[in-house]
Amino acid sequence: MGIGIGQDDRASRPRVSADRLWRTLEEYARDGATAAGGVDRPVFSAADAEARRRFVADCRALGLETRVDAAANVVATRPGAGPLPAILIGSHLDSVPDGGRYDGALGVLCALEAMRALVAHGAPTHHPVSIVSLTGEEATSFGTSTFGSRALAGRLPDVADNVLPDGRAVGAALREAGGDWERLSSAREDLGPLAAFLEVHIEQGMRLEAAGRPLAVVSSVNGIYRQRIVFEGEAGHAGTTPMAGRRDALRAAARCLLAVAGLPAAAAAADPSATATVGFLEVAPNSPNVIPGAATLVTDLRSADPALLAALARDAAAAAKDAATAEGVRAEVATTLDQAPILFDSSLREMMQGVVGRLGGADRELASGAGHDAVHLAALAPAGMLFVRCAGGLSHRPDESVTREDAALAAQALLDTVLALDSL
Amino acid sequence: MGIGIGQDDRASRPRVSADRLWRTLEEYARDGATAAGGVDRPVFSAADAEARRRFVADCRALGLETRVDAAANVVATRPGAGPLPAILIGSHLDSVPDGGRYDGALGVLCALEAMRALVAHGAPTHHPVSIVSLTGEEATSFGTSTFGSRALAGRLPDVADNVLPDGRAVGAALREAGGDWERLSSAREDLGPLAAFLEVHIEQGMRLEAAGRPLAVVSSVNGIYRQRIVFEGEAGHAGTTPMAGRRDALRAAARCLLAVAGLPAAAAAADPSATATVGFLEVAPNSPNVIPGAATLVTDLRSADPALLAALARDAAAAAKDAATAEGVRAEVATTLDQAPILFDSSLREMMQGVVGRLGGADRELASGAGHDAVHLAALAPAGMLFVRCAGGLSHRPDESVTREDAALAAQALLDTVLALDSL
Repeated sequence: MGIGIGQDDRASRPRVSADRLWRTLEEYARDGATAAGGVDRPVFSAADAEARRRFVADCRALGLETRVDAAANVVATRPGAGPLPAILIGSHLDSVPDGGRYDGALGVLCALEAMRALVAHGAPTHHPVSIVSLTGEEATSFGTSTFGSRALAGRLPDVADNVLPDGRAVGAALREAGGDWERLSSAREDLGPLAAFLEVHIEQGMRLEAAGRPLAVVSSVNGIYRQRIVFEGEAGHAGTTPMAGRRDALRAAARCLLAVAGLPAAAAAADPSATATVGFLEVAPNSPNVIPGAATLVTDLRSADPALLAALARDAAAAAKDAATAEGVRAEVATTLDQAPILFDSSLREMMQGVVGRLGGADRELASGAGHDAVHLAALAPAGMLFVRCAGGLSHRPDESVTREDAALAAQALLDTVLALDSL
Repeated sequence: MGIGIGQDDRASRPRVSADRLWRTLEEYARDGATAAGGVDRPVFSAADAEARRRFVADCRALGLETRVDAAANVVATRPGAGPLPAILIGSHLDSVPDGGRYDGALGVLCALEAMRALVAHGAPTHHPVSIVSLTGEEATSFGTSTFGSRALAGRLPDVADNVLPDGRAVGAALREAGGDWERLSSAREDLGPLAAFLEVHIEQGMRLEAAGRPLAVVSSVNGIYRQRIVFEGEAGHAGTTPMAGRRDALRAAARCLLAVAGLPAAAAAADPSATATVGFLEVAPNSPNVIPGAATLVTDLRSADPALLAALARDAAAAAKDAATAEGVRAEVATTLDQAPILFDSSLREMMQGVVGRLGGADRELASGAGHDAVHLAALAPAGMLFVRCAGGLSHRPDESVTREDAALAAQALLDTVLALDSL
């Protein structure tokens, strides 16, 4: 295998297979594969359905008790020797549009590889161990992210009637994926008691690369605040409406998004990790010779500091109003996400720090600028995360990458943490 | 009928029917009807196909020789008594997305009503008279406008392989509409010699309303220059990419569009009718938590002054480069339309001025800020246009409106101009 296992030399210790994990990563990258080498696998798309089917088949082939819950999460369990709460490991298989192969899938497939190593090793664990593919972690245009983990935590807003880009309602798409909006609350009960949740994920930053380390324990996750801002002006003919009388919704949206992008610079002293992004903008009717009557954008504001996050949200809403006033249009601001910064369980972090240290990982913990399913599962049980080095920090794009060796090391760290938890 | 016919009291003069015209306008408004009371009938859409079928059926029911040419224009002819060139009248049936009932359709249906009045009256004309529905006058995302009239003038760029919003290639969609890209040049030959082209259109401005007049002769049409500007930056995770290192394509597009919108104010002294609009903007991947890697916009610049139009185009391209530099992204600017200002045939305008004056229309001619099919047909024969008052100047939107009386007056003016031309 060739992965470093540090000072740990117990002969009977279950070992992940770097080859098998890499092969599996390549298999799953076929579902929604793009010409650029990434995957295009938004939640509830055909590619997402293919990846789910592949995961269900792989879990069943391993002899695991495999089920799809009401939120369309796929959970597969190897029973424990005793009547103890389960150790849950996994992440998500959906991607952003035109995304990469590893954001999410690496965490699910490290969990699958850890489980394969456990099964191959044969020794029973005290706790049941479950692997999970959580539904729809990425942000969507229909108004929610971390769909599956929010559902488990009872935090999913009522988006059943919201509409996907393909025109289906969320509730209908969920049903096609094997879920059931009406029984959403059953997902938590069906999961049973949990001892812990562990998630492996690519760093999506450049700190591990800069430090020359393959892995790190995650200390905390920045809070995220999102607003859907709709500007409503007046559509009209581009050639015959005098410039002076216009109420151009897109011009207001442009002013707003530039003001929002400037907010973190002013707050950099308080939190250098703070970010503000407008990644989504939609214009109506979006025709070259029609003055835009409406423009909708979504802000994405992040900070480790709850007070600063609230200030960013207030400032972004004020920027929307100012832009609307300047262009003579109306602005409506709706909060679509308000997720407080969270700190992961300290004793779990300490245990993971020991495992990561033995495998050559980073001494220092990292804060996460991105939200993750672990944020919501932390409400149900102690949760922990491991970050894996990714080249150039690139993420949410086709050239997102990790090495075969780093992936295997992450799977081994995940497995070692499961075994450490099981031996408590 | 109740429409004013001024001092003209010849008993045997053919008269349009205000009731029949209004009923017909209501019938055609069903094709692509929107909840807001307008029509959504982009070229080559299902609604556009329905309106074409309705027009073909109406022309055949009237006993006209009706054909669909290689550009999918529908041409229906009533033969003349002598071997003379034809008088062509009409406009277009397509609309902008979520548009109104009258932009285009009023001109086609005034022509149909004038023809119905001619047929009902029974007297032969010296010239053949043809009515026409021209294909795809409105701007499209696939890169052209005034599709049918450009094809007749031999000015259609090669857009056969460009793609419609529904994924079909333009060539394939044209074939489904009854045209044939390979035989495009045959459309002009099939039309035969032309004596004149006349088009009725809503004003899409507020000058007639302000003057309290139902109709005016159009003197000229502003030139239009369009650029497709693609900004290419670098996609990345919204939460983990530091603000300082970003290359956000949407931020560059926003800077550019605000600069472009500001250009006409600086040129207002030279041409108060100059406009600059960004009506189309598309973001990729357009996901709330991904920094936009690409953004594409289309500028629409208009002026009656050729030199000023060229200056606007240069300044818009410079604004794109400046915006790209400011945000660390690349910009590519491609000209997709460069249509010079045109002045309509002076003797035809004089004749129409007489007709319009007798019907109570405006004494002064109007310049058009919008492009029209007549611009291209003016290359084939003397062309003339009549503008009809529309409430509030509203256009390219569902609440675009004209009155029953103004519509009938326009149809009568069109018919009277045909008869005046025929008696030369």
